[in-house]
Amino acid sequence: MTTPDMTRSKAMYALLERLFPICRSITGNGVRQTLTILGECIPLETHEVPSGTQVFDWTVPPEWNIHDAYVADACGNRVIDFQKNNLHVVGYSIPINGRFSREELDEHLYSLPEQPSAIPYVTSYYKAHWGFCLPHCERGRLTDPWYDVVIDSTLAPGSLTYADLVIPGESEEEILISTYVCHPSLANNELSGPVVATYLAMALLRRERRRFTYRFVFVPETIGSITYLSRYKDHLKKHVVAGFVVTCVGDNAKFCYLKSRAGETLADRIVLHVLKHAEPDALIFEFTESGSDERQYCSPGINLPVGSLMRTKYGCFPEYHTSLDNLEFVSAEALAGSLEMYLRCVDGLERNHVYRSRTYGDPQLGKRGLYPSISSKEFAESLRLMINLIAYCDGTHDLLWIADKFGVPLARLVEVADLLTSHELLERVS
Amino acid sequence: MTTPDMTRSKAMYALLERLFPICRSITGNGVRQTLTILGECIPLETHEVPSGTQVFDWTVPPEWNIHDAYVADACGNRVIDFQKNNLHVVGYSIPINGRFSREELDEHLYSLPEQPSAIPYVTSYYKAHWGFCLPHCERGRLTDPWYDVVIDSTLAPGSLTYADLVIPGESEEEILISTYVCHPSLANNELSGPVVATYLAMALLRRERRRFTYRFVFVPETIGSITYLSRYKDHLKKHVVAGFVVTCVGDNAKFCYLKSRAGETLADRIVLHVLKHAEPDALIFEFTESGSDERQYCSPGINLPVGSLMRTKYGCFPEYHTSLDNLEFVSAEALAGSLEMYLRCVDGLERNHVYRSRTYGDPQLGKRGLYPSISSKEFAESLRLMINLIAYCDGTHDLLWIADKFGVPLARLVEVADLLTSHELLERVS
Amino acid sequence: MTTPDMTRSKAMYALLERLFPICRSITGNGVRQTLTILGECIPLETHEVPSGTQVFDWTVPPEWNIHDAYVADACGNRVIDFQKNNLHVVGYSIPINGRFSREELDEHLYSLPEQPSAIPYVTSYYKAHWGFCLPHCERGRLTDPWYDVVIDSTLAPGSLTYADLVIPGESEEEILISTYVCHPSLANNELSGPVVATYLAMALLRRERRRFTYRFVFVPETIGSITYLSRYKDHLKKHVVAGFVVTCVGDNAKFCYLKSRAGETLADRIVLHVLKHAEPDALIFEFTESGSDERQYCSPGINLPVGSLMRTKYGCFPEYHTSLDNLEFVSAEALAGSLEMYLRCVDGLERNHVYRSRTYGDPQLGKRGLYPSISSKEFAESLRLMINLIAYCDGTHDLLWIADKFGVPLARLVEVADLLTSHELLERVS
Repeated sequence: MTTPDMTRSKAMYALLERLFPICRSITGNGVRQTLTILGECIPLETHEVPSGTQVFDWTVPPEWNIHDAYVADACGNRVIDFQKNNLHVVGYSIPINGRFSREELDEHLYSLPEQPSAIPYVTSYYKAHWGFCLPHCERGRLTDPWYDVVIDSTLAPGSLTYADLVIPGESEEEILISTYVCHPSLANNELSGPVVATYLAMALLRRERRRFTYRFVFVPETIGSITYLSRYKDHLKKHVVAGFVVTCVGDNAKFCYLKSRAGETLADRIVLHVLKHAEPDALIFEFTESGSDERQYCSPGINLPVGSLMRTKYGCFPEYHTSLDNLEFVSAEALAGSLEMYLRCVDGLERNHVYRSRTYGDPQLGKRGLYPSISSKEFAESLRLMINLIAYCDGTHDLLWIADKFGVPLARLVEVADLLTSHELLERVS
Repeated sequence: MTTPDMTRSKAMYALLERLFPICRSITGNGVRQTLTILGECIPLETHEVPSGTQVFDWTVPPEWNIHDAYVADACGNRVIDFQKNNLHVVGYSIPINGRFSREELDEHLYSLPEQPSAIPYVTSYYKAHWGFCLPHCERGRLTDPWYDVVIDSTLAPGSLTYADLVIPGESEEEILISTYVCHPSLANNELSGPVVATYLAMALLRRERRRFTYRFVFVPETIGSITYLSRYKDHLKKHVVAGFVVTCVGDNAKFCYLKSRAGETLADRIVLHVLKHAEPDALIFEFTESGSDERQYCSPGINLPVGSLMRTKYGCFPEYHTSLDNLEFVSAEALAGSLEMYLRCVDGLERNHVYRSRTYGDPQLGKRGLYPSISSKEFAESLRLMINLIAYCDGTHDLLWIADKFGVPLARLVEVADLLTSHELLERVS
Repeated sequence: MTTPDMTRSKAMYALLERLFPICRSITGNGVRQTLTILGECIPLETHEVPSGTQVFDWTVPPEWNIHDAYVADACGNRVIDFQKNNLHVVGYSIPINGRFSREELDEHLYSLPEQPSAIPYVTSYYKAHWGFCLPHCERGRLTDPWYDVVIDSTLAPGSLTYADLVIPGESEEEILISTYVCHPSLANNELSGPVVATYLAMALLRRERRRFTYRFVFVPETIGSITYLSRYKDHLKKHVVAGFVVTCVGDNAKFCYLKSRAGETLADRIVLHVLKHAEPDALIFEFTESGSDERQYCSPGINLPVGSLMRTKYGCFPEYHTSLDNLEFVSAEALAGSLEMYLRCVDGLERNHVYRSRTYGDPQLGKRGLYPSISSKEFAESLRLMINLIAYCDGTHDLLWIADKFGVPLARLVEVADLLTSHELLERVS
């Protein structure tokens, strides 16, 4: 792998750092603020879908916003304070203002006995509820007989906000890149996805030529992708040839891949190929382990070719959905490395053509300067690759299939195909 | 597995015990007597096919009946006596009455040097012959210069007797259950099959609702199934979706399965699934190891989806086809356990529907009370199963396919499918 | 394997010995002389294709002939002498006659430091060049300041010579046997191929009955097979059902097989079957390791079912393309054993019919004397094979498929099929 661009990696981390403090949820100003900041990097188009809109089996919920929240002890000290960490409040908490006995309050507290220093991330989107999250080690200190509880939130008709960006290519065939923007101050899951997706879009926008059209989607998880599909299902089913949900790509661990439901789509093939050569021991998950928006994209009747290339999979790292998934848990290098890995996949797709040999039998490489004029025992590996590539270019198999057949990286085969095409020995079929 | 019903298991054994003494062969009164007794349990319809009838490549042979047979020594003592064990006479022995030198007699004697205490089971259905079978250890004691031999049998035009029972279901699709009733006093092979088949029919008759039609066939082995096929081939080819030859299900060993010729039929799929979860180390035989009536049902041009779920396969236990395959070799528990295993397969088939999700994307489980209102790190296994089942209900795969994909028992998936169908999240396609 | 016919094996070796001294190349009198000698054994038809003829991407080159060549030292001694070994001259060397300094000469010398006693085999067919090859251990002795160099060769318009022989069979379906005749004094690679191919043709000519038509092709490697394909491509694509490039079949090592490009053709199936039973640990190469005329036969748009059954594969033995690949490196036994192995494959193809059972269910073997009249515990292996064969003769699978399914040699199954056909239990479908 080439060394990641140091400037770019730092810029990626800085973007994540800037987004980190915002209190996001599946609706509300946190999402808007986030999309505005990302929109400074790429020309995102933002959309608002009114609360109450029916989207398949779901209804867009009321919009939630929050200004302040705390639990104060008998002396008036804020013992749990939203201002210090937005994870302290259960997502979508209804407004509350009152005095509660310790016992009453306790029923609204969430902590993790096995991770006593971590604030858990808890939400209650679709059932009216309020609550506070705190480190388990602090819970025992709440010994006052009563506490004052304030949640200064609003739950009211508004809208669900998402953004997309379509970068046109030579073909109407689309590569879908989807990520989600509904988590509050959680770094890896999920700000790494929006950051990497944004930089991937930036890289593609800079290109003079793109084979495929690229569709970037920034949505709240689940309700957002369902909303998006309810609007664009038919278009996506017609055009998307491969897609990825970008999530959990900021930690420093190795990559893994979660396969699409169909399991052998172009998305699966390119990632499995790239990983085989870049990280041969990468974990590969079946779709039955799915847990994010690929569930929606792959669902029956939609069935898009969408998988998810991650570092450590959601749910598989102890920091997951806790305050330990913070700015220290992710790194500039990991973000940049994830971008590189996605670019490899994208580049593989861009170059994965089907070729046909323009002659019967081996062509005469010698008259084109492609063959050593003196034949001897040496039969160079590159010559073998050239000859074998021609032998398999029968107009039916794509380069990716041939690369897997040969056990060589696609990128290497692309070079050979380019050389042979320039000598008019191969022609592109698709 | 649920504990077998003790009353039922004892009743099954008692039925086998009652049938045991009867001298059965491929034709004759032993078969009729057996079918009459089974007919006390289930409403069997008995059929007679005249000797001489052409059935495919075979001809129904003359009917054989036997009243008495013995070898008496010079003092008049019965040294081999059919009254003591009907295995002593070679099946289909012609009538004989005469005095033979020891040497002449010896050519008509059968014993097993390697199992000196066992009487072997020998027949000569299609070549005129007579003979006696005896324990090898007793053979050496026959030192008299001559013996009187009497076989009081008849071989005359008559008929081949078989019985069947069709238990109608909602569908014309049939499950075929075939077993054979032509073995004399042999317990496991073959009275266990008729007993288990009879109790399986009883269990199905008691049900208010059956998806499939069930066809039970009690025939003499080979000539009987060939006769049956010669009459019902076209009907069976049209209607049978799965079938089983029930044999060797009374011993106390683990289960095994012999696959159909095609090897991947519904019959194979359900048994392999059930065994994978109930007895993961069960032996699985290819059809090339076939040796009973599945040979006929699967033969070219007929090709029914018929396998055989057994305990120890015929030929694979030392007691096979000897007097050691007796009432002690089988047990009430084994018979009842085999019935249970067949019921599991039948129940699996009954419930193996194809479903389709009624929504695009994940449905909103929460509003139906199927999802924890507070989302947290816990993502229960049952919730995962529910979500995954919906994800794979695309109207093409049956539950059995999905259960194998998920590695969960079909019965577990049926529960989830029922729950989801009651919430109108899934609909049955077939 | 049967013991090779000693007379035949010696005759094969003698033929190779006779061909060995001839200086062959891709064109010229060496090829003609070789084909004339082979034509004494089999009725070859020889063809001449003029220099300059366009054959697919190639042009038939000028014809090369050589009469003498040497390097003489200052005293007039021939220090490198074509008369001693034709490998001393680079194939297709242009004529030369002059005095060269040691340094100038050195640029035209080829030797192998790692095999200091071997003369390498070097050619320059398509670029004007001259050169000498010598053992590396002798190169250091060339210390004179200058040398006289003579290559008395001609490179002029002429023709490419090849020969073929079509042995008709009952079917228009063809088995293609191709070998090459362009190597000078190299024994295993490549005189073993022409010798074995010739004897294979002799064996087939002696037969009264052949199912398939056999096409034998003796060509110079690459340019020859390309020339042949440019003439007969459409015919071959229509008729060839299996084919083999015969090469490297004279050394004493075990067999290996290089698969066709498609990899699962009839050619592949028969060789893999024969080797599985004859040499279970035989090396099997993918087509990506291809290096001889199968490259042309399998190329895109032609795609014939052609593989190569060899002993040690070209390039995989140290003597390859050096003077060490000489008469001592090959043996009469190896040549005869290779012939036998090819005959096994051919015989397998000849007998690999598709059968259909003529009855439903098992036939009654007893009335045809094919079944023991007394059934007992013994169920002979041959009876099992008979019964299983009938069970799988459903008019769709060929004997080769069934043999592989059963894990028995095809030859064994052919015997059983013949027996069953003679009893009218099976009929041939194709």
